[in-house]
Amino acid sequence: MDTELLKELIETKEFKVLRNGLKKLDSVALADLLEESEPDNALMAFRLLPKDLAMQVFDQLDPAQQSHLLEAFTDSRAKFFFESMQPDDRAELLDEVPAKVARRLLKFLSTSERQATLTLLGYEDNTAGRVMTPDFIDLDHRMTVEEALERIRKLAVEKETIYVAYVMDNERKLLGTIHLKDLVLANPETRLADIMTSAPKTVFTYTDQEEVAKILKDYDFLAVPVVDTENRLVGIVTWDDVVDIMEEEATEDIYRFGAVTGDEKGYFASRIFSVVRRRVVWLFLLILVNTVTGSVIAGQEAILGEIVILAAFIPLLIGTGGNVGSQSATVVIRGLATGEITPKRAVAIITREAGIGFVLGIVLGILVLGWAYLLGRSFEVAIVVSATLIGISTIATLTGGSLPFIFRLFKVDPALVSAPFITTVMDIFGVILYFLVANMLLSF
Amino acid sequence: MDTELLKELIETKEFKVLRNGLKKLDSVALADLLEESEPDNALMAFRLLPKDLAMQVFDQLDPAQQSHLLEAFTDSRAKFFFESMQPDDRAELLDEVPAKVARRLLKFLSTSERQATLTLLGYEDNTAGRVMTPDFIDLDHRMTVEEALERIRKLAVEKETIYVAYVMDNERKLLGTIHLKDLVLANPETRLADIMTSAPKTVFTYTDQEEVAKILKDYDFLAVPVVDTENRLVGIVTWDDVVDIMEEEATEDIYRFGAVTGDEKGYFASRIFSVVRRRVVWLFLLILVNTVTGSVIAGQEAILGEIVILAAFIPLLIGTGGNVGSQSATVVIRGLATGEITPKRAVAIITREAGIGFVLGIVLGILVLGWAYLLGRSFEVAIVVSATLIGISTIATLTGGSLPFIFRLFKVDPALVSAPFITTVMDIFGVILYFLVANMLLSF
Repeated sequence: MDTELLKELIETKEFKVLRNGLKKLDSVALADLLEESEPDNALMAFRLLPKDLAMQVFDQLDPAQQSHLLEAFTDSRAKFFFESMQPDDRAELLDEVPAKVARRLLKFLSTSERQATLTLLGYEDNTAGRVMTPDFIDLDHRMTVEEALERIRKLAVEKETIYVAYVMDNERKLLGTIHLKDLVLANPETRLADIMTSAPKTVFTYTDQEEVAKILKDYDFLAVPVVDTENRLVGIVTWDDVVDIMEEEATEDIYRFGAVTGDEKGYFASRIFSVVRRRVVWLFLLILVNTVTGSVIAGQEAILGEIVILAAFIPLLIGTGGNVGSQSATVVIRGLATGEITPKRAVAIITREAGIGFVLGIVLGILVLGWAYLLGRSFEVAIVVSATLIGISTIATLTGGSLPFIFRLFKVDPALVSAPFITTVMDIFGVILYFLVANMLLSF
Repeated sequence: MDTELLKELIETKEFKVLRNGLKKLDSVALADLLEESEPDNALMAFRLLPKDLAMQVFDQLDPAQQSHLLEAFTDSRAKFFFESMQPDDRAELLDEVPAKVARRLLKFLSTSERQATLTLLGYEDNTAGRVMTPDFIDLDHRMTVEEALERIRKLAVEKETIYVAYVMDNERKLLGTIHLKDLVLANPETRLADIMTSAPKTVFTYTDQEEVAKILKDYDFLAVPVVDTENRLVGIVTWDDVVDIMEEEATEDIYRFGAVTGDEKGYFASRIFSVVRRRVVWLFLLILVNTVTGSVIAGQEAILGEIVILAAFIPLLIGTGGNVGSQSATVVIRGLATGEITPKRAVAIITREAGIGFVLGIVLGILVLGWAYLLGRSFEVAIVVSATLIGISTIATLTGGSLPFIFRLFKVDPALVSAPFITTVMDIFGVILYFLVANMLLSF
């Protein structure tokens, strides 16, 4: 049964057929279906699911949807679903719901669970502490393999991952990690201290989640251990959370490069006016910068009044400057984000980009000269445009290539060097250079 | 010992101190160090590592570096490292090295290993077949839990992951998956068929790697099973490969949005001229489109000769159009990539974006009117600019919001709607609208 048909059944409230149809989908498909339905219909369809499946689907929904369902549920039903969540997901949800709902939900938890959830909420957004789960398997360094396996069997049902276990000393400081694989393969009498991986790579609760993702990626970890300042293990960030973090961080970088402020997550959830507010700040700042470009042009009334055709090439020149600059910035910003480029190599990279810009300028200059000739434009003006193009292209790669490093130097996220920002800066450089060259070459 | 000091030791060839210093780093840090050193120095430092550590470091290097080392090694040393690689990494490496080196390396493998590697190489780039590993734990559906655990113990040493095992029928068709966790917790006498997850989500060998990543993310899988057209399991794509795929795909999307063609991976590996070639195509196409803008302006010599100041606002207007359009395109492109936005909702989203553009235009128009007044510009011109701004802003969100959908409709990757592309298209709309409004409002 396809989802289109199911959507119709939801809308027409054909309960019997619907109930059977829903059961044939898996939890991910069901979550997608609910997210695409009207809130009230989603609630109705969710109620038709058998309890086990409903729990899996609930897990797959995004926090906004979960919050919507919980608000509509009776206390006992809300308690059931809220209790079944992992502590890290629970913290994320509480962050999303209105304070009143959060207070209602927190009451459903046992004292220790409430404590764990509130602790996670105490860490700053986008840090390891906020995304970690306190549910991990801890082992004592004096245990044998047999004792460890017994403990894992006992704890397994409630822990998020059991494939990596953490070996602690008497003061709960992290000594090493051990994979379930190695426990299964080892002699039951062996002491953990003899087969564990000592002093594993760890992060602190305040480490940025992007750094956590990088470590899991570089070390091929299943989970990254999170310690407090005294090296006591307080949680782990598992691979599935890292996969989500990576998508979130990529979205953030892409938004910044497109000059979209903040996260527009939940595209349909935000009101038009709040979207406008988030976008208008950057736009107006860029317009203010652009008045410089306008003033430069306004100051050239003499030559422009004489040779009006010069105005026709302004968009081409400043446009190309912006495009060339965006390309350089794209490569450098992404390189810095993935770690392929390090700030130490800034000089080498900027020099290289300048060289690329110069060659690009010559190639484009020759092409444009030919093109202008074909179109029958004045030869003098074509020369001015080509010469300007070489200069603009070099300045653009220099600007686009160096700005991310300069931002990084001043501890500003290099991803804030957006395409619109580069474009606007290149507008200024472009018109200044253009009229400089024009005034030099065109004696009138 | 910090890496800066080690780099110096590498350069001065202080072998003894260096050997001890290197041993103190972990494999990831060592791989970073080697990648930042000159090729010959990297080779020298690599030779100083103890064999075990060297193997781990080799695993961490990127294919270009691995290839460089293998080419310099003696046969027996090259054989040792090449044999120790996972089949999927081996295929990636063979793709990178010159044909001559590939032939030499393939000779080092046993017939069955060579076969497995060549099979992977036969699948198209960026498909599940290319990134999967054929090393997985397969179990027979008639086995008991005890028999399964015994088989896993026997196979575990050589398999990439043992935490998910795959249950097959007599014809090697995939029946279900089972987690090591569930095996460890189950009664040893239980039949696998009773506790496995039946009919798991699978992908085909030709499925795009981006789709594979999405499935692992949505289902929180440790690995995605890959089947041939007859539902026979041929490989799995593990979580660590998906983490790499996600980074690669995000880079691709970001590059496209910045109008950087192809992958500039291995930034320092490519020559300046090949970088220029890859960037110049887009730039020249955009310049060609931009000549339309030039022609529009050239056709307005009459009004421009009269009111030269009009030229001063061209960059501001077309710049804002490009910026507003980029913002809309950013949100829609990313939404399509993550699946938050589906093509089915195109009309709703485009309408919404147009609304946002109109409101943005009014806000910006009023701000600019005030700004122009403060700067003492002519009131008539300021009115023309503000009115144009409202129109441009609306057209920009319409364009930026709908182009990704139109591209998708024609089966072109929406990520090809780059910021420079939007900017250039908006240049044309911008000047046309500007002179239309100017000619209408300014009677002269």
